[in-house]
Amino acid sequence: MRGEFDLIRQYFSRTAGESVSLGTGVVLGVADDCAIFSSHHQIATSKDLLVEGQHFFSDVDPFTLGHKALAVNLSDLAAMGASPIACLLGLALPRIDEQWLSAFSKGFYQLSDKYHCPLIGGDTTKSAHDIVISVTVFGEVSPPYLMRNKAKVGDIIWVSGALGAAHTALMLLFKSQEQALSPQESLLLVHTRQALECPEPRIMLGQSLKSLANAVIDISDGLLQDLGHIMEQSHVHAYLYEEKLPIAEALRSLPTTEVREAVLSGGDVYELCFTAPAKFSEDIGILAKHLGIPLTAIGEVVQVSKGEPTITVFDRFHHKVKMMKKGFDHFASSV
Amino acid sequence: MRGEFDLIRQYFSRTAGESVSLGTGVVLGVADDCAIFSSHHQIATSKDLLVEGQHFFSDVDPFTLGHKALAVNLSDLAAMGASPIACLLGLALPRIDEQWLSAFSKGFYQLSDKYHCPLIGGDTTKSAHDIVISVTVFGEVSPPYLMRNKAKVGDIIWVSGALGAAHTALMLLFKSQEQALSPQESLLLVHTRQALECPEPRIMLGQSLKSLANAVIDISDGLLQDLGHIMEQSHVHAYLYEEKLPIAEALRSLPTTEVREAVLSGGDVYELCFTAPAKFSEDIGILAKHLGIPLTAIGEVVQVSKGEPTITVFDRFHHKVKMMKKGFDHFASSV
Repeated sequence: MRGEFDLIRQYFSRTAGESVSLGTGVVLGVADDCAIFSSHHQIATSKDLLVEGQHFFSDVDPFTLGHKALAVNLSDLAAMGASPIACLLGLALPRIDEQWLSAFSKGFYQLSDKYHCPLIGGDTTKSAHDIVISVTVFGEVSPPYLMRNKAKVGDIIWVSGALGAAHTALMLLFKSQEQALSPQESLLLVHTRQALECPEPRIMLGQSLKSLANAVIDISDGLLQDLGHIMEQSHVHAYLYEEKLPIAEALRSLPTTEVREAVLSGGDVYELCFTAPAKFSEDIGILAKHLGIPLTAIGEVVQVSKGEPTITVFDRFHHKVKMMKKGFDHFASSV
Repeated sequence: MRGEFDLIRQYFSRTAGESVSLGTGVVLGVADDCAIFSSHHQIATSKDLLVEGQHFFSDVDPFTLGHKALAVNLSDLAAMGASPIACLLGLALPRIDEQWLSAFSKGFYQLSDKYHCPLIGGDTTKSAHDIVISVTVFGEVSPPYLMRNKAKVGDIIWVSGALGAAHTALMLLFKSQEQALSPQESLLLVHTRQALECPEPRIMLGQSLKSLANAVIDISDGLLQDLGHIMEQSHVHAYLYEEKLPIAEALRSLPTTEVREAVLSGGDVYELCFTAPAKFSEDIGILAKHLGIPLTAIGEVVQVSKGEPTITVFDRFHHKVKMMKKGFDHFASSV
């Protein structure tokens, strides 16, 4: 695998070699059969596969793709309140494109530097057709853990950032493959594309929520679907108030039904949704200011009653919103 | 991602839910944003991507594929002398085939049970064309680590098991796609196929080598290539004696050149190659008997002299064997 090794060496061996640390950290990087790291706490780990044509367009900017491949994994650490330790990267490529690799590795390393999450190992190989990116992240956590099954009746439901932009950008990119976008649509794409292609993992927020939240999840598949996991696993029910949902500024001019779909069901968001006791609402407001991240109360946790769905959404007239598809199913649809 | 979640639940959630352990072990399995595990030692980790058409044939028995996907990763832990803690599985599938998934998961779990390496999380997603399998393993290690860069002049070079069967099976499977195999070839395939499709990770051997070996690697890309990594990283040179190489029994009737290619350059072996001080040779013989694994002295480590290759192979007349391609390059050839 000379080709592979040269490739890895050239673009992904910045942390290669031995770097012994006495406390938490990387003991052995890219160079041996395994990488080695150490921690005085528990290890949280997650891995996500990104497949060309399913999770990203073939012509996506490789710099943002490198960023996003790591970001979606760091987002899982954020949802556990974990501090990043290190990551592994697996890359299957149908061909070697040095320009692509160079840009991809730059995007990856920029984010790994930002969150002190060094690349310590992995695997690069050939694929027959698709680019496949597999990242594994490790973070430190200590109990009590920020889990999905601890939401309590009476909790306020919060979401970070603004919703809907990533979904809108995705729809516009689909459309642009079929026909030319109008000037308004092109402008809307400019204003929403960053949210889709360069999501920011909410690492600091996740860590800060350890003393405040009962249950946390990151929104990868859509607010309704992901909040639904908290509700199902906690055996509770959510009331969401549509007029409270933080809508991305760029979407303000869109029709209500489009906005609703984007905000409630749009995936690829990587904001955190969490539930916290009402007594912490003021602290959460202070935290939002401190971190410079909007945190919005969007509903409350109520008792589940038999046969009810796990989430009820009310419009501004307090009428129940008819539920639409909950989120993006990779096996039901395809890019 | 309802489809995905149902899929994961059905076939890969045997360790789901919470299982708190006080010592080393799994704290939180498949159910949240991250899995959590703990260890009192350092963590060794490795990930390998297996891509359809590159690392396995599309029609391979899914049971053995499930076994092999984990085995090749456990083999990396073995080469570090690590004790398995847990693993993650990422699966990208072009379609849902329940029979395939059922068999794959059985093969995977059978090996994960055998080596106490529970599946604690991962990701299942759709791919456009190829099946891609990404496994990440975690193991416990403590210093001094079994690394590639510690081979010393005077060390004896050892290899476990027998060599060449996997390569021979691979060549026969290639050939069978073009033309019918002769009865002799079919019989040879029967006797070699297990080595290719169901390699046994040398976990116990790796752990036992901690007090004996200076440098260890697992043979995934071929003896010359992988031993070459030890030589390069240790800045030493290897003398290998062809008549000492342990050849798989089934290959005895093949022509010398074919055997030579299979044994020296054939990949997918997952035996351990290691160097150890000569004073430990008797202990290594005892270890081989104790574990029931053949361990064969195949050469020695000598000083590197300027301009020399990293390995010299001598035939039984003590003539230098002309070097052939060192191993399998995924970017230069394809299945």
